[in-house]
Amino acid sequence: MKKVAISVGDLNGIGVQLALQNHKIISTIVNPIYCIDKEMLKQASKKLQIDIPNNFQTIEYIAPYFKIEAGLVTKESGAYAFASFEKAVELARDKEVDAMTTLPIHKKAWELAGIKYKGHTDALRDFFDAEAIMMLGCEQMYVALFTEHIPLRAVADSINEKDLTRFLLDFYASISHSSGTQLDFFSKSQPMSPRTIAVLGLNPHAGDDGVLGDEETIIQEAIDNANISINPCYRRGEDTPTYSNPLVPDVAFTSNVRKHYTHYVAMYHDQGLAPLKALYFDEGINVSLNLPILRTSVDHGTAFDIAYRGVKLSNLSYINAVKYIV
Amino acid sequence: MKKVAISVGDLNGIGVQLALQNHKIISTIVNPIYCIDKEMLKQASKKLQIDIPNNFQTIEYIAPYFKIEAGLVTKESGAYAFASFEKAVELARDKEVDAMTTLPIHKKAWELAGIKYKGHTDALRDFFDAEAIMMLGCEQMYVALFTEHIPLRAVADSINEKDLTRFLLDFYASISHSSGTQLDFFSKSQPMSPRTIAVLGLNPHAGDDGVLGDEETIIQEAIDNANISINPCYRRGEDTPTYSNPLVPDVAFTSNVRKHYTHYVAMYHDQGLAPLKALYFDEGINVSLNLPILRTSVDHGTAFDIAYRGVKLSNLSYINAVKYIV
Repeated sequence: MKKVAISVGDLNGIGVQLALQNHKIISTIVNPIYCIDKEMLKQASKKLQIDIPNNFQTIEYIAPYFKIEAGLVTKESGAYAFASFEKAVELARDKEVDAMTTLPIHKKAWELAGIKYKGHTDALRDFFDAEAIMMLGCEQMYVALFTEHIPLRAVADSINEKDLTRFLLDFYASISHSSGTQLDFFSKSQPMSPRTIAVLGLNPHAGDDGVLGDEETIIQEAIDNANISINPCYRRGEDTPTYSNPLVPDVAFTSNVRKHYTHYVAMYHDQGLAPLKALYFDEGINVSLNLPILRTSVDHGTAFDIAYRGVKLSNLSYINAVKYIV
Repeated sequence: MKKVAISVGDLNGIGVQLALQNHKIISTIVNPIYCIDKEMLKQASKKLQIDIPNNFQTIEYIAPYFKIEAGLVTKESGAYAFASFEKAVELARDKEVDAMTTLPIHKKAWELAGIKYKGHTDALRDFFDAEAIMMLGCEQMYVALFTEHIPLRAVADSINEKDLTRFLLDFYASISHSSGTQLDFFSKSQPMSPRTIAVLGLNPHAGDDGVLGDEETIIQEAIDNANISINPCYRRGEDTPTYSNPLVPDVAFTSNVRKHYTHYVAMYHDQGLAPLKALYFDEGINVSLNLPILRTSVDHGTAFDIAYRGVKLSNLSYINAVKYIV
């Protein structure tokens, strides 16, 4: 059974409740190691009135203890969340675990604690000096983001052939057999039969032959580069391409089109995530690809408003994040 | 029963099949008047092997007759489609009908016929010298577009307080009681209780307090202007607003958020239409608001690939387009 390091996220939020309540299920999927000190776990368990399950393996000396204050943004909690995350990364990097799953942190708390990163993916990029690829979704549909957290006005100028070609090659390597550590993309739904990955255009109607923008020309060039680089014998129009031509963005997620694709490359954040979350919100996860380690994450926040209030939490995202690893 | 003029769209496409096959249903909802010459109807009916139903009211002298050629883009068909549309507009403008519904035209055929408009909405703007508002969707969810067919790179600069305030006021007037000719927005789901219309932010995470773009400040100002202009007694934070604050775009269409809204204002084409079509494609319609007449339309194309082939067509969009009127 695979070993997975789990960082507990912001202890003033809902992460630790998820960890405690779902340990039994999670343990049937992987062998989890929780990056939390026993003492902090006891405090959370008491506050939540949830017993610590048997075989709940923890790690000592994560960071200084502090008083958990439900729903509060504090630097102590931020520092602890970051330390828990760092420990999980360390375990994954040193191959003491096969992968890591992160529970939600609070950006502002990281900031208060003097952490310079905006979030997990940002930190991972810096730790490994690698172009981490952010992919979100669930089994029915995954979306990888070519640009992420940038203003909409900066998106069009970020589309260039070189970077997009690199991105398409990296993403393909990350999700195909060849990467070894990642998921077996091709054999999932259609054994032995390659599937095409959808690439979205940038403009309405994918530019309508240049009338509504011309970045689709650049996108098409990058697609052609990637298709031929991945399969040097690839003949356009005859072989199944690795990447589709630029799809019309508002039609790409209709149910008929979704029948043909499970993986999408979006040019910008909301282009991919708005349709994804409209369709699949609760079950969505966040995966960091193209790194020396595999990291998955829940796709929700700390939910400070319902932390430590005895509210029943949806565990779909958490379970899917762990399942993705196996 | 309301009278509705129906323009038949491109006769080389699927529009006339929809009209013939659904006349019986449509006649139970409205009193339809089809903008097609009897002679052309006979030709289509024969080619489709569908009898002309009883009480199928047509209009003579639409445009020169021509030979229908299934799936072909021709100037004759383009000219006929435009003339059919013009006739429907004329009937609506002269109050001989209460509203009009358009079947799909082919842009390229219009172009071949020397028509200067890109589509129906474009033509209506010019005919009435009015800022038509394009709203798409179905009963569960409507999306109005602040910007439409422009390149993505031009969107951010199009967001300005004056135009957006005007848009919000016009849109509100179009869908509220006061407009008289339009739908009774407020009484639909919650009788007598005003509902808030969702306004989307522009940037990822609605700008994250300015970190990912600052157009949300402008959007907020326009929202505030509109809320106070519509209800001079409006107190922010206390009264139910007409328009919401700028919502985080990728969360705005999740099922939990959709419970609170039926009408959305999107800043750009794909922001609203990608989630809409992911959720509701077949049943979607297109409505032109803020005009002296009411025009509804199916939200699909001419489907040249299946025209006159005996394929069973989904009539959801057509029926919804007609239903919207009543």
